[in-house]
Amino acid sequence: MKGIFITMEGPDGSGKSTQIEMLKEFLGKKGYDTVITREPGGTRISENIRGIILNKEFTEMSDMTELLLYTAARAQLVHEVIKPALSSGKAVISDRFIDSTAVYQGIARGLGIDTVYDINAHALAGIMPDVTFHLDLPAEVGISRKKNQAELDRMELCTIDFHKKVAEGYRELARRNPDRIITIDATLPKEDICDIITKKIDELLKQD
Amino acid sequence: MKGIFITMEGPDGSGKSTQIEMLKEFLGKKGYDTVITREPGGTRISENIRGIILNKEFTEMSDMTELLLYTAARAQLVHEVIKPALSSGKAVISDRFIDSTAVYQGIARGLGIDTVYDINAHALAGIMPDVTFHLDLPAEVGISRKKNQAELDRMELCTIDFHKKVAEGYRELARRNPDRIITIDATLPKEDICDIITKKIDELLKQD
Repeated sequence: MKGIFITMEGPDGSGKSTQIEMLKEFLGKKGYDTVITREPGGTRISENIRGIILNKEFTEMSDMTELLLYTAARAQLVHEVIKPALSSGKAVISDRFIDSTAVYQGIARGLGIDTVYDINAHALAGIMPDVTFHLDLPAEVGISRKKNQAELDRMELCTIDFHKKVAEGYRELARRNPDRIITIDATLPKEDICDIITKKIDELLKQD
Repeated sequence: MKGIFITMEGPDGSGKSTQIEMLKEFLGKKGYDTVITREPGGTRISENIRGIILNKEFTEMSDMTELLLYTAARAQLVHEVIKPALSSGKAVISDRFIDSTAVYQGIARGLGIDTVYDINAHALAGIMPDVTFHLDLPAEVGISRKKNQAELDRMELCTIDFHKKVAEGYRELARRNPDRIITIDATLPKEDICDIITKKIDELLKQD
């Protein structure tokens, strides 16, 4: 069995976790052993880096430090989890990956997509998602779904303008990568979203 | 007064801290307000990153993760401390900087000096040391000066072969950057080393 690498992207509150669980069940029926991971995090070292990135005390963090920390966490996740899992024929689903960095740090923070890819090329070690599902949601809806403001982290606490740039950034990135990134209206019922996702995965598996 | 950026490089145990204190006193007599910093660290965020880098539990850390974490800590230090201090005409002395990463991660870990500079260009924001003092010491001597093995961190616990590559790497880097990097025999008496350093600083200050 050939490994398959699927990433789920979209703003906070777009329903990524729910779809990941449903997709895992579907992949299980197809005979896949599935590894679910998340960014930033997914390894002991990366979760420690996550603790620094999302710490809401660290308001002085520079945009470049933020980008480098996300990339460091990713380098460890690729090295320790994603690459070995794909090599042994597993399915890997990651809740956020390179596209989050392109959108949040490259577009919304304004560091530029090229800068993000330049630095990330070193961390990816040749690994890119086979397919990416972009759960598209207006920024206002995503934010309002996160009801408990007290629990928001440093990224979630960004301004509504920032989150609007994120939502638009995802659409821009999907337009640039039409073969890999599938945009889905995240306001659809979750079963309908799941249908779109599993049909696409079925197509991909038939190609192999 | 124009800011001046001085970095002190060399293996552990080469006497960098002692020379930094002596240099600070000298700069004070020249009328400089001097900021002393160290890498990895020097800011609240960078010290948190340092905690991850040097944690000896994290033996599974990939070389690329290590490089990106050092670079993230540096980006924050440049942004928060070094750039503002230089802009306001202060002297900055850093215990380790970009050359440490070129030597430890680029040469000794084998990631390549070009990879180190590619990634670091984003973190440096145009800042490079005006002068760098390389305290040259055979690897065996550096290690034996660190007597309490129980307190060694993840980097200090590397093999003697690694530390030999570091010592040779510094010499290679100094050969490549003869105008900026001044190599000094670290087995000399500390007063003699201090004389060499302060004479060079005097020359630099006269040029401005």
